[in-house]
Amino acid sequence: MRVDIVTLFPELFETFLATSFVGRAIKGGELAVRLRSPREHGLGKHRSVDDTPYGGGSGMVMRADVLVACMEALDAEAHAAGEPRARRILLTPQGAPFAQPAAARLAVEPAFMLVCGRYEGFDERVRSFVDEEISLGDFVMTGGEVAAMAIVEATVRLVPGVLGNAESIREESHGEGGLLEYPQYTRPAEFRGLAVPDVLAGGNHAEIAKWRAAQSLARTRERRPDLVAPGAPAAIAPAKGKASE
Amino acid sequence: MRVDIVTLFPELFETFLATSFVGRAIKGGELAVRLRSPREHGLGKHRSVDDTPYGGGSGMVMRADVLVACMEALDAEAHAAGEPRARRILLTPQGAPFAQPAAARLAVEPAFMLVCGRYEGFDERVRSFVDEEISLGDFVMTGGEVAAMAIVEATVRLVPGVLGNAESIREESHGEGGLLEYPQYTRPAEFRGLAVPDVLAGGNHAEIAKWRAAQSLARTRERRPDLVAPGAPAAIAPAKGKASE
Repeated sequence: MRVDIVTLFPELFETFLATSFVGRAIKGGELAVRLRSPREHGLGKHRSVDDTPYGGGSGMVMRADVLVACMEALDAEAHAAGEPRARRILLTPQGAPFAQPAAARLAVEPAFMLVCGRYEGFDERVRSFVDEEISLGDFVMTGGEVAAMAIVEATVRLVPGVLGNAESIREESHGEGGLLEYPQYTRPAEFRGLAVPDVLAGGNHAEIAKWRAAQSLARTRERRPDLVAPGAPAAIAPAKGKASE
Repeated sequence: MRVDIVTLFPELFETFLATSFVGRAIKGGELAVRLRSPREHGLGKHRSVDDTPYGGGSGMVMRADVLVACMEALDAEAHAAGEPRARRILLTPQGAPFAQPAAARLAVEPAFMLVCGRYEGFDERVRSFVDEEISLGDFVMTGGEVAAMAIVEATVRLVPGVLGNAESIREESHGEGGLLEYPQYTRPAEFRGLAVPDVLAGGNHAEIAKWRAAQSLARTRERRPDLVAPGAPAAIAPAKGKASE
């Protein structure tokens, strides 16, 4: 999988792309990332990428011509290398909120491009040159860079070979109709008066699976009733399957 | 404002904390960040921070004793410096989904602590030692670090003095009952056959404000009907106010 990133702050990604499983995926060849700054296509001696908004108002707007030039330069690089063209994704508060189904969908794309904004926003015409728009959530950010990292992390971990089996089987633990995780415990058996539940220390695997499934459902009902469908008991199946692994 | 961050990957934050307005807030003294790794409190010669789960299952679970030791060491540092104790926030998929009202609430805290996980999850007992739990969204991440960056960025920009007035007045543009942004345009007037709408080039401020408010509402209805209350026209007020600034 290749990810192209259009950002005014490519240095923000350096450590992220060198750390943990993302770094390993790049070393292992499962992931390639190209970072390009719109500044390279900026105008004038200041390499300007933004300008004041038509109609007035505060702040600056990123120019469509500069951003599109940067996207097309990335496409040209891919084409020259015999690589597939990237699906273009604009990171914007106006986009569809990011969630696990989108991560699963992007994980099977051969290449996608994340276009990060800064300043007040994009010139509206940029939207005509992208395939989709994604928002990280209903909160205000000043740039798209952190959203890009979140999408890379959530997506790349689903690419076969990137995570070990032990980790990857937990993919369904959230978001795709799954329930919240059941409580986990490790040593010590008692910590400041708080003990590990007897059932987990007991070694009866059927009882443990039953307890975990019930906890998972109860916790989801309590904390995220929105994740539990009206016919809730049916939703217990994935948690059961997971607990018995 | 002070932010304490508990993370196994403090290096992931270095460039983030040095860049853009977050870097300026640190230089300007509006923000102080302390990064500490649970590894400093790890056990044995490998400074182990995790162990296998009670009851079986894949993967490793972060130990409660090690994490709590790290949190308490941060509290002790703050206390020694005469600084307020941080509100403790666990970053976990089981937490409340992060959104703008949470950013606004945290922006007025004198100090908060973001506890990032890795591996399969936390020992359940960690939850007894935190004040709240937050999830970045309904997607699976492998660590809490990117969520921590998102929360720092969304929160710090609301701290008075961090952003210029021109930027900060747009705080309400998303999430707190607001509507999606109206379309923005900047130069060139025409780009690949796409022109700036006549009303914006016309200079009639009342017409521009009316157009922007209508666009904002129409876009929200189309893309995010969930953000528009049943009595939708009432929600037009914030967009009107914003457009006329």
